[in-house]
Amino acid sequence: MSFFTITHKEKHSRARTGIIKTDHGAIETPCFMPVGTQGTVKALDVNDLHTLDAQIILGNTYHLHLRPGEDLVAEFGGLHSFMGWDGPILTDSGGFQVFSLGHKKNAGEDTPKNNQSKLVRIDEDGVTFKSYIDGSTHRFTPESAIDIQHKLGADIIMAFDECTPDDVDMEYAKQAMERTHRWAKRCIAEQRKQMTQSKPALFGIMQGAKYKNLRIESAKVISAMDFDGIAIGGESIGYNMDATKEILSWVIPIIPEEKPHYTMGVGFSPLDLFDVVEQGIDMFDCVAPTRIARNGSLYVSPAIAKQEHQNFGTKDRKQKYRINILNARYAKDASPIDSSCACFTCLTHSRAYIHHLFRAEELLAYRLTTIHNVHFFLQLMRDMQDAICQDRFLAFKKEWQ
Amino acid sequence: MSFFTITHKEKHSRARTGIIKTDHGAIETPCFMPVGTQGTVKALDVNDLHTLDAQIILGNTYHLHLRPGEDLVAEFGGLHSFMGWDGPILTDSGGFQVFSLGHKKNAGEDTPKNNQSKLVRIDEDGVTFKSYIDGSTHRFTPESAIDIQHKLGADIIMAFDECTPDDVDMEYAKQAMERTHRWAKRCIAEQRKQMTQSKPALFGIMQGAKYKNLRIESAKVISAMDFDGIAIGGESIGYNMDATKEILSWVIPIIPEEKPHYTMGVGFSPLDLFDVVEQGIDMFDCVAPTRIARNGSLYVSPAIAKQEHQNFGTKDRKQKYRINILNARYAKDASPIDSSCACFTCLTHSRAYIHHLFRAEELLAYRLTTIHNVHFFLQLMRDMQDAICQDRFLAFKKEWQ
Repeated sequence: MSFFTITHKEKHSRARTGIIKTDHGAIETPCFMPVGTQGTVKALDVNDLHTLDAQIILGNTYHLHLRPGEDLVAEFGGLHSFMGWDGPILTDSGGFQVFSLGHKKNAGEDTPKNNQSKLVRIDEDGVTFKSYIDGSTHRFTPESAIDIQHKLGADIIMAFDECTPDDVDMEYAKQAMERTHRWAKRCIAEQRKQMTQSKPALFGIMQGAKYKNLRIESAKVISAMDFDGIAIGGESIGYNMDATKEILSWVIPIIPEEKPHYTMGVGFSPLDLFDVVEQGIDMFDCVAPTRIARNGSLYVSPAIAKQEHQNFGTKDRKQKYRINILNARYAKDASPIDSSCACFTCLTHSRAYIHHLFRAEELLAYRLTTIHNVHFFLQLMRDMQDAICQDRFLAFKKEWQ
Repeated sequence: MSFFTITHKEKHSRARTGIIKTDHGAIETPCFMPVGTQGTVKALDVNDLHTLDAQIILGNTYHLHLRPGEDLVAEFGGLHSFMGWDGPILTDSGGFQVFSLGHKKNAGEDTPKNNQSKLVRIDEDGVTFKSYIDGSTHRFTPESAIDIQHKLGADIIMAFDECTPDDVDMEYAKQAMERTHRWAKRCIAEQRKQMTQSKPALFGIMQGAKYKNLRIESAKVISAMDFDGIAIGGESIGYNMDATKEILSWVIPIIPEEKPHYTMGVGFSPLDLFDVVEQGIDMFDCVAPTRIARNGSLYVSPAIAKQEHQNFGTKDRKQKYRINILNARYAKDASPIDSSCACFTCLTHSRAYIHHLFRAEELLAYRLTTIHNVHFFLQLMRDMQDAICQDRFLAFKKEWQ
């Protein structure tokens, strides 16, 4: 059984469909992975995830290490059985959270010179950091990051990398990238040592900040290693889509075509999904759909967005396919969030009811809106897969411009 | 079709089973009604309520009047269609909330002399009060309370009464009771005027605070009126079970047997349910099961309670059939909340996982625990109905002592 099979290559772009096979089920790509940071996709239960046909969810090694701890999860037979989810799980390596914690404390500086801070200390062997929960000291190394992920028992695990902001200076970006490459080798060595019965797939992560020469070098080095999939990392991936697209244009021609391609942190807007899928990306995750749902910000399709646009003025790219249900104009609106949407929320409830739930600060609001936003992204992925198979991806993308 | 049919009278107590028929379905009694204050049973959706087999839910006129307002709900075709719930609904009259709002502001006094306060002004015609949301002034009269409930479109509505604390002096308790009786007549008159297509059932509420003579008088007066059901009101009903039982022993022999009997606010402990059912009560509601769930306080059956009792010391009556899942001893506990419980939560998740969700402040915690507590009460009602039908209610009660 091969881990990843490309099922169709679109004629007019780099977009492709595929299937990733894991012990907990198959994943059709391109796929959006809902984020379940602390052992739950916020506001949803495992039945909801099955109903939404989420084929894979993401868990965060950083958060799960701090609470409840990988040893407790391992005692329960791993994250699947601890949280009651029998579908595939991908865990990140913890690097992104550890380093972005450091960046936050650099916030006063215009250009962070490096990833060192009061909360984060990096050396060649690994990184020492303080818990955001209780200030206790913890340490991740490439070996421990792999070990923790094996204890969590995910189906796909990630190499431990040093994630840099894209605006660090080139010297530091080069140092961090080279360290990431050395750590990548150690992750592969540790993965080989681990005696887990059903070995997870291990993905490598390339870095290089905003520097073309570094990005190309990192793409070559990580691609040459024995990884099951290749991720494009960096703090601006997903957050700055212009930078993301430029970086992808440099590295995609280098990455082996037959391995899954993963952009970490992409999915603020439906438009972002189109942009990376067009470049041949197979997997992505983002907290946006669930996080903005809890603020009442809900995705809508082009037809609905157009109505809103005509009635209530222009929107920027990020806001274009969203409505905010807290707006007073929805207080008496009997239509669903999106009349073309088939999620439980849209089939059952009006905008007015959801508006009321937010005003009354009712917990149900967060669940109903999360269901909608996650369904919206997963349905969009299914529609993209269809469009790719029919070689009309670019035409489909055009409907969303 | 008769509104209420007694299906069995238990041989050894006043307990009975029955069926209440409404346009939105039948309700098997004795029944516990989950409280959906603001158009949602907190943390649950309407599918959850169906899965739990909740045969009726309660809505609060006071809260729904303030937000989103009965006119908006009426525009949506009533509360059923506004909230997407197609089962029976009972609305209270708003009196309890209006007057308890007044009591809170009397908190400095040992014995509230009356129901007047800065926030609540009572006159013969009705009551003027300030919104807890924005301080705006509102007014309820017997006529407006009935009118609002018709607009909300409930299946069972309540007369507008003056709810008194049980420790007001006898003079004020008598005044308030007599006003409640005059208001009851006006509610019946208004109900006759209302041209609603499917008229809701209208229940009367007796008052009289802690005074036997007043309670007996009120039971006689309200029982003699043309109500479809009879409720026993007062601020200590349910909150003080000794007082509740004493009051019931005075009034139950007076109330017509063939009408449903309703104690408003009963259900802090499973023991409370046994106490009122034994006295021939058919309906009750309480925010406790849903509210304490959100604090991690979860009901358990006698066998589990006994283990906890042996291992961790005695519990008072209120705590006896509860565990608090936040307790550190559950952090590694792989068993479900209650191994004899068949709710989704107990079938799917461990105590350790729910403990983790609370520690991590995950929204899912509140939904899973609410499902458990509501299921626990509704299952207990089904078990009580079986026990009554088999004339073994007292033996069943004994298992819970």
